[in-house]
Amino acid sequence: MRAPLLALLTDFGLSDPYVGIMKAVILARCPGLALVDLTHDVPPQDLRWGAFLLRGALPFLPPRSVVLAVVDPGVGSARALLCAEAQDKVFIAPDNGLLPLALADCEAKDVRWYRVDLGRGFGLPERSATFHGRDLFAPLAASLAAGTRVERWAVPIPHPLRLPEPAREHGPDAWSGVIVVVDRYGNLISDLRPPDDEDGGAERVLELPGHWSGPLSRTYSDVEPGSFLAYVGSYGTYEIAVREGSAAERLKLKAGASVVLRWRR
Amino acid sequence: MRAPLLALLTDFGLSDPYVGIMKAVILARCPGLALVDLTHDVPPQDLRWGAFLLRGALPFLPPRSVVLAVVDPGVGSARALLCAEAQDKVFIAPDNGLLPLALADCEAKDVRWYRVDLGRGFGLPERSATFHGRDLFAPLAASLAAGTRVERWAVPIPHPLRLPEPAREHGPDAWSGVIVVVDRYGNLISDLRPPDDEDGGAERVLELPGHWSGPLSRTYSDVEPGSFLAYVGSYGTYEIAVREGSAAERLKLKAGASVVLRWRR
Amino acid sequence: MRAPLLALLTDFGLSDPYVGIMKAVILARCPGLALVDLTHDVPPQDLRWGAFLLRGALPFLPPRSVVLAVVDPGVGSARALLCAEAQDKVFIAPDNGLLPLALADCEAKDVRWYRVDLGRGFGLPERSATFHGRDLFAPLAASLAAGTRVERWAVPIPHPLRLPEPAREHGPDAWSGVIVVVDRYGNLISDLRPPDDEDGGAERVLELPGHWSGPLSRTYSDVEPGSFLAYVGSYGTYEIAVREGSAAERLKLKAGASVVLRWRR
Repeated sequence: MRAPLLALLTDFGLSDPYVGIMKAVILARCPGLALVDLTHDVPPQDLRWGAFLLRGALPFLPPRSVVLAVVDPGVGSARALLCAEAQDKVFIAPDNGLLPLALADCEAKDVRWYRVDLGRGFGLPERSATFHGRDLFAPLAASLAAGTRVERWAVPIPHPLRLPEPAREHGPDAWSGVIVVVDRYGNLISDLRPPDDEDGGAERVLELPGHWSGPLSRTYSDVEPGSFLAYVGSYGTYEIAVREGSAAERLKLKAGASVVLRWRR
Repeated sequence: MRAPLLALLTDFGLSDPYVGIMKAVILARCPGLALVDLTHDVPPQDLRWGAFLLRGALPFLPPRSVVLAVVDPGVGSARALLCAEAQDKVFIAPDNGLLPLALADCEAKDVRWYRVDLGRGFGLPERSATFHGRDLFAPLAASLAAGTRVERWAVPIPHPLRLPEPAREHGPDAWSGVIVVVDRYGNLISDLRPPDDEDGGAERVLELPGHWSGPLSRTYSDVEPGSFLAYVGSYGTYEIAVREGSAAERLKLKAGASVVLRWRR
Repeated sequence: MRAPLLALLTDFGLSDPYVGIMKAVILARCPGLALVDLTHDVPPQDLRWGAFLLRGALPFLPPRSVVLAVVDPGVGSARALLCAEAQDKVFIAPDNGLLPLALADCEAKDVRWYRVDLGRGFGLPERSATFHGRDLFAPLAASLAAGTRVERWAVPIPHPLRLPEPAREHGPDAWSGVIVVVDRYGNLISDLRPPDDEDGGAERVLELPGHWSGPLSRTYSDVEPGSFLAYVGSYGTYEIAVREGSAAERLKLKAGASVVLRWRR
């Protein structure tokens, strides 16, 4: 059954024709397919950044979407090509840890993992050593989007490669996290999700240790223009922003900075 | 009746997945719809810049196009969602002044304004406080592009919110205007349109007070490479450029700078 | 017969609505056409950069594709509009040397050249002097993509305008070339193709005179992170990169730098 759309996420940028060439390869093999660019501006080779964006986009992709995510520091090496089925969608990426992070909201039992068998002849006849997006990933994605089953090109595996989990404080009075993405507006986007349970009257405070801390707001207009605020953003995690300004610029902070959620009791 | 295309204009940029997620939401609800990005690089929250670009694009959109313009400093606040019907097209935007500016070439009587009734249940089931583009605007645009009438989701209103008109000199010997956009080439694009009437032998001169003035040319090749020129650009307004160079860089000027058209009699 | 897709390559950037407006004009005249952006970030007016990218993309475009390439320093002047048929594809561009460079891999006898006859009335009713992409190229491309034959709008010509060939050393022990493109990763991409013949035991070395030289690798993972390598890239030419870094930044080099392939016997 044909996919309703193919979503693309890469670190290729748009100033080179790499993405356009991949699209040409895909459309040559699956004419009429709707292509949606999630983004191509993942910072080069930043697997955690790419995984976080993809994770945030997943709930909004229609069933049977195919997702192609190419952030690939190991292109040309022996790293495998990975497929996954989860949430009624199909995923394709290098086996480098990005996909397991992006699918972290799925129960392990609800994800089926596959390693692509390069001997099954789905790619372009000539394969470069540096552009597998064009020569392997694009033809594979086109085939799956056209309705071919994953098993045609890949074999089930128990576990993909995973990135090491960073150490996290997760105590009764403080949870620690990391700024994983800085968006176009200079908003500092963390991977900390709000707790499900009630706080028993304790006030929650978000902290960028050594730089800023403050209570939680609901949206930008809760504070004056130029003021800082912390809130649950559209990815479902805590963000720190400056209304009509750039928090990243004001605080000189980048992805990787620490963030702490504290309860003041 | 289905729209031939949906045109998008935002200040979301393309480095985040915000635009891609909106497109996924739209295509899930209106499969096969043609999506055209006018631009997503309006400087963050610059309503006048966005309105000017949209105004310039309108004559080239086919009849029954749907236009979604999201530059939204007030997201999450009580600002309303606006729709308009004009020029055989449908427009959707926050009610913040952008659309009336973009539709300034239409006679008031040829534009019908609507305020969206959020209680009518067209959006995503969960609404964030910071990404109405995804949760409200995209589902609304998809519905209208699929052929639903505006009245299904919105009620007529007499007037939208308008931005204050800047003071303008409009005398017999001088018209004043503003640089509203600086494009990729560094061309300084003003909002001044050439007068319809004849000049009675007077020479027209364009002036960037304190920086440059010169006569009007027709196109770049009228001057030497590296030289300045003023001309009526593709938006139908006066622009100042450097042939094979950047006027913005040479003069250190940005959007907001003053411009004057003078008649020398 | 309708084109499977229309590929676009320009120096218009994506921050202005120029590309979006061209697409609206195209889709108004050829609804449902698949549009593929090769790139719009060719450095302004850099014909050689644009031609190189297009040349690299050609093998991956499906038969009967239409290609519209607008890098146009001479817009508004008397320069002609050029069409070409080659490789079962149709090409449209200003007659300024870009297309002959992009089609350099085709035998001269396999390319048919045409000059567009502006009097045949295919463009928009009003023509600006500065945006032929919108007013002339887009309507022409839409017509050809919809299946109209080139002869309807253009007349055969023996030769297009060609850019001067830079002087090249092409001796038995050294070939010289030029860095033509610096990509998003900071890879320095040359126009030097690997020789077809064997080297008789001689070692090949790539040199950026005064900056770096080294042996040839196959792919990034052949060297340590942070190290330089030279290899045949995805365009089929020699590139110099830093694994997980930027060669352009490390060497402070830009397009135009010299590169030499040497044989050490």
